[in-house]
Amino acid sequence: MPDRLGPKRQVPLVERLALVGIGLIGSSIARAVRHIGLAGSVVAADASPEVRRRVEELGLADAVTGDLEEAARDADLVILCVPVGVCGEVAAAMAPGLKAGAIVSDVGSVKGAVVAQVAPHLPAGVHLVPAHPVAGTEHSGPDAGFPTLFLNRWCIVTPPNGTDAAAVATVRAFWEALGSNVEIMTPQHHDLVLAITSHVPHLIAYNIVGTAADLEKVTQSEVIKFSAGGFRDFTRIAASDPTMWRDVFLNNKEAVLEMLGRFNEDLAALQRAIRWGDGEALFDLFTRTRAIRRGIIDLGQETAEPDFGRPRASS
Amino acid sequence: MPDRLGPKRQVPLVERLALVGIGLIGSSIARAVRHIGLAGSVVAADASPEVRRRVEELGLADAVTGDLEEAARDADLVILCVPVGVCGEVAAAMAPGLKAGAIVSDVGSVKGAVVAQVAPHLPAGVHLVPAHPVAGTEHSGPDAGFPTLFLNRWCIVTPPNGTDAAAVATVRAFWEALGSNVEIMTPQHHDLVLAITSHVPHLIAYNIVGTAADLEKVTQSEVIKFSAGGFRDFTRIAASDPTMWRDVFLNNKEAVLEMLGRFNEDLAALQRAIRWGDGEALFDLFTRTRAIRRGIIDLGQETAEPDFGRPRASS
Repeated sequence: MPDRLGPKRQVPLVERLALVGIGLIGSSIARAVRHIGLAGSVVAADASPEVRRRVEELGLADAVTGDLEEAARDADLVILCVPVGVCGEVAAAMAPGLKAGAIVSDVGSVKGAVVAQVAPHLPAGVHLVPAHPVAGTEHSGPDAGFPTLFLNRWCIVTPPNGTDAAAVATVRAFWEALGSNVEIMTPQHHDLVLAITSHVPHLIAYNIVGTAADLEKVTQSEVIKFSAGGFRDFTRIAASDPTMWRDVFLNNKEAVLEMLGRFNEDLAALQRAIRWGDGEALFDLFTRTRAIRRGIIDLGQETAEPDFGRPRASS
Repeated sequence: MPDRLGPKRQVPLVERLALVGIGLIGSSIARAVRHIGLAGSVVAADASPEVRRRVEELGLADAVTGDLEEAARDADLVILCVPVGVCGEVAAAMAPGLKAGAIVSDVGSVKGAVVAQVAPHLPAGVHLVPAHPVAGTEHSGPDAGFPTLFLNRWCIVTPPNGTDAAAVATVRAFWEALGSNVEIMTPQHHDLVLAITSHVPHLIAYNIVGTAADLEKVTQSEVIKFSAGGFRDFTRIAASDPTMWRDVFLNNKEAVLEMLGRFNEDLAALQRAIRWGDGEALFDLFTRTRAIRRGIIDLGQETAEPDFGRPRASS
């Protein structure tokens, strides 16, 4: 498994790359692309003047703009790195600048809704190839990015039926150059898979942190002090970007509700096992769940270090 | 905040320490105690011959035995480091060996049940001072321990009403020497606090890993591959020792069911917000939860590094 990005390329994969939205993901792409020379030039677009100034200070792009039509002009590949809820309006704003043959992609955590919201705005001859790099941290903004964020992670590409094969191949090559494994699936299947591997986990993490904050019999100070018993793990993903996650839940409603239904059903059974003192049922589940973590570690998607390899004092 | 254990002591705090059960916690105590000279001698007891052999190979104690009465003989402080469910029978077995004035403590994650199960077996003149170091990793056994496990963590001490003050002071001094902050509370309040900061988090982590493993529309291979979207975090605590956790739920039933009731109520409200597209309610919760993590980091109970400081490739 590679432990670093490849060497600088002689020939870029795309001549002109436009990144729209320079947060954790957009800025990580910018850093990786410049590191390995994946694009002839990079134009960065962001609605926020502070973000644009920061992108300039960090030297993340060749050009920085707040004008989406300008960002799209002459771009061979445009990647939307904005919350899912604004993909449609962003696509509409940049559409007049897009040239024939351009590829429009994104990094959204929901794919069905992105296709539905972006496709209608794209001119004929522009290829839509949605993608989702399954990678991130709980931090946000252009300072939070780093070039190896996508290394050894999966990137799911979800081309609608009939998408130009060469455009799909370019997007695949792009993510592979960033160190990712690429998997192709339908937007619908993506949304179901991510509902259980990402969306419902985030929802229950946000939920338990909220529950703990609202108790009367246990103080917030106690919750904070004694969080090393397990609770603190949940606060990490419950510190993720609120706008991004609101949009995920609003735009992947059916799949999230379906998976949440399964979660609730199983939790009700566990609750009943506790109430009736069914130790065998508890022990069986608690044994079974170990194998899944082993699989994740074996596949290089998790560290084998205890406690996530959290920094530890020396004796 | 100290970042290492103190220097070796001139005078031990206790003459003879007996540790009963040498897993992650017992072996971490043994390592720390020997590192700083906290006890004149350490006797390690374990029911498993393999564990006893490993304790000898690792040189964790001055004496190793499978006989609890022998382990307790002449001990000034006995610490039970066994699953909560066997505390009562362990106490009964060692009781004949206990001397007057000895202190019996433990490290169990539940305190009301430990008091109820251990106290009846102790001879008059023996002091019961239950304790719970809120620290651990997902690994188990004598090889998993390390001496700084308790550094900067909290240890909750729950002496029953009327407990000898000198005995409580000794247990407090013991854990402070291991680098912990000590807080005194009633067993009942402890069990409520830990239900929300540890037990329910473990339960929902075990539950979602089980739910994900049982789906038909999403394969286990997909769950494993795309786990970096959040799911993998939950697999860590769902890889914790099954016996220990079965016993926690069987022995802290009321508090766990009470906190689980609150969790479920809040989750039902979130589910409804998703179904009805109430983005404002989602955004409000997702913003509120960030403050709790900030408090945990500020108190030194969590790393500020993104992604728990998980090992990251260089570019």
